[in-house]
Amino acid sequence: MTTKAYGALAADKPLAPMDIERRTPGPHDVQIDIAFCGVCHSDLHTVRSQWAGTLYPCVPGHEIVGHVSAVGSNVTRFKAGDTVGVGCLVDSCQHCPSCAEGLEQYCENAFVATYNSRTPDAPGHTLGGYSQCIVVSDSFVLQIRHPREQLAAVAPLLCAGITTYSPLRHWRAGPGKKVGVVGIGGLGHMGVKIAHAMGAHTVAFTTSAGKRRDALNLGADEVVVSRNADEMSRQAGAFDIILDTVAASHDLDAYIRLLKRDGTLVLVGVPEHAHPSPSVGNLIFRRTAIAGSMIGGLAETQEMLDFCAEKNIVADVEMIPVRDIDKAYERMLKGDVKYRFVIDNASLAG
Amino acid sequence: MTTKAYGALAADKPLAPMDIERRTPGPHDVQIDIAFCGVCHSDLHTVRSQWAGTLYPCVPGHEIVGHVSAVGSNVTRFKAGDTVGVGCLVDSCQHCPSCAEGLEQYCENAFVATYNSRTPDAPGHTLGGYSQCIVVSDSFVLQIRHPREQLAAVAPLLCAGITTYSPLRHWRAGPGKKVGVVGIGGLGHMGVKIAHAMGAHTVAFTTSAGKRRDALNLGADEVVVSRNADEMSRQAGAFDIILDTVAASHDLDAYIRLLKRDGTLVLVGVPEHAHPSPSVGNLIFRRTAIAGSMIGGLAETQEMLDFCAEKNIVADVEMIPVRDIDKAYERMLKGDVKYRFVIDNASLAG
Repeated sequence: MTTKAYGALAADKPLAPMDIERRTPGPHDVQIDIAFCGVCHSDLHTVRSQWAGTLYPCVPGHEIVGHVSAVGSNVTRFKAGDTVGVGCLVDSCQHCPSCAEGLEQYCENAFVATYNSRTPDAPGHTLGGYSQCIVVSDSFVLQIRHPREQLAAVAPLLCAGITTYSPLRHWRAGPGKKVGVVGIGGLGHMGVKIAHAMGAHTVAFTTSAGKRRDALNLGADEVVVSRNADEMSRQAGAFDIILDTVAASHDLDAYIRLLKRDGTLVLVGVPEHAHPSPSVGNLIFRRTAIAGSMIGGLAETQEMLDFCAEKNIVADVEMIPVRDIDKAYERMLKGDVKYRFVIDNASLAG
Repeated sequence: MTTKAYGALAADKPLAPMDIERRTPGPHDVQIDIAFCGVCHSDLHTVRSQWAGTLYPCVPGHEIVGHVSAVGSNVTRFKAGDTVGVGCLVDSCQHCPSCAEGLEQYCENAFVATYNSRTPDAPGHTLGGYSQCIVVSDSFVLQIRHPREQLAAVAPLLCAGITTYSPLRHWRAGPGKKVGVVGIGGLGHMGVKIAHAMGAHTVAFTTSAGKRRDALNLGADEVVVSRNADEMSRQAGAFDIILDTVAASHDLDAYIRLLKRDGTLVLVGVPEHAHPSPSVGNLIFRRTAIAGSMIGGLAETQEMLDFCAEKNIVADVEMIPVRDIDKAYERMLKGDVKYRFVIDNASLAG
């Protein structure tokens, strides 16, 4: 089946319209008409081959929402017309310890990302959500229970939402806990909303005083301008969890010093250049930790979507037609988006 | 009360005999005749002022064992003749959250180390176990239940033992867990013995192939020579906990790569020069963590001593008279000790 998409033929080429093939749905497959697709920093890194190993043609996009248009004969959880989502992964081995525990994102054998992973389907690697249609194994499709008019703003939950929800849940954010969220961008604005909804006392850290009001509006109980040494020192030793969404190289010690004994700084962004080496003394003297976390498993992603539907949480988004994607990337690089671009996939038809 | 001690008058002076004062025991104090005192790297760093803030005269020593010679009127847990120990701390605020949880080593107000901490007693700072006698609040004195003939070899449990026991307990070493211990020195040799006794599959990491047999004798189930890339890569993704006792700057990623999903690399040594900055990707892609840990609280130190008595665990020690302390430091710096020097405090009388 041929479908319209937007992608790049090489790292130095702009994205352009292209036709791609989707497989005929097998017995366990769900075919989805894509309504909207969020724009993640990973899309930009991959399509421009800023990380090693981009396979071309490259069609990015892993914050996918839409409607089921067909299901395979063995699919029971979905039917035509259902509102569904697809996130960052579309297959895994299903039998390693991580998969067995519902942590498919850490699959030890065969993690298949939504784009840029090897697959038997044409053209030999996965192609993502900057397209009209996608065919995905039913185990990797998620139910969306938000009202239909929120659908565009739900798309970013599939990556930005779960990337912040999963560590907040794993390190037990909730009532009585003080949680910091560093960086108020695509990930961070979701982190603030979710930590607040979990009942944690939520503190947003931003480099720009201009984001203070915005962060409060997102649900932060306090906002700290991280360039202000006094504001920072007043928070020393106060935090159970600090979720650091900033992928640029920065001083981790500034945040480790703000942790309580047994607190954890969780990193969710991989910096292009290494962070300065963190002080070991800060870890030892209060038994603190620096940890990492990557997206979430399928069960947890469904839990996050249901949690967000119940709490009326969506992303703050700016909708774009697909032809504006390169402009959107440029604005994203400047931090000029509140807080996530979402492609209106109807614009692919044009 | 005057007692003989061995200490330094300045960073560039060798240790020499000196007379020091101990306070008259108050109602809650225990007076201890010191039989043996272990020699820790911290002693050397402090006495030579390699860390900031050494107060002179400096009498080091925080691996203290001996016998009670007097008790204050309100002391009920100890009586003259009891075999007891004193570790790295001799007072704390007793009311902050850490103290309330029995984690006095992380006291948020007034941690008083066994030497080199401010105190009202003469000369205004604490003086450690390179001395004939010490007076300590009963809350900071530990019962020793090992056979009397093992007493010298028990001394290092008070720092090297608890420094390895506490993180192994906290991160749940035990049957079914694979635990690595990096560095087979004063701390590491205790880590191997304790992890093995806890029932964990214990792997010793050493830079020197010559320590392979020794590490097996200490209780390691496997030994990996860390300079051997093949041996290291065979352990990839295998460990629940890696306890890193090496204080010299080294590549942490080499060990983080050996962690399972959700595994933790625990650092217990503060390097003089920073470790190379660890890779964030290694943390994110398997939700691993780098943490620190410092000695242990009083209740846990007693638990460790009782565990070691039950399991017949002591340190491997080389006894020295106190006049050989500077030679011992020089040999320690070269790693020429198996695995801990212990001062025979009877030699102070000479």
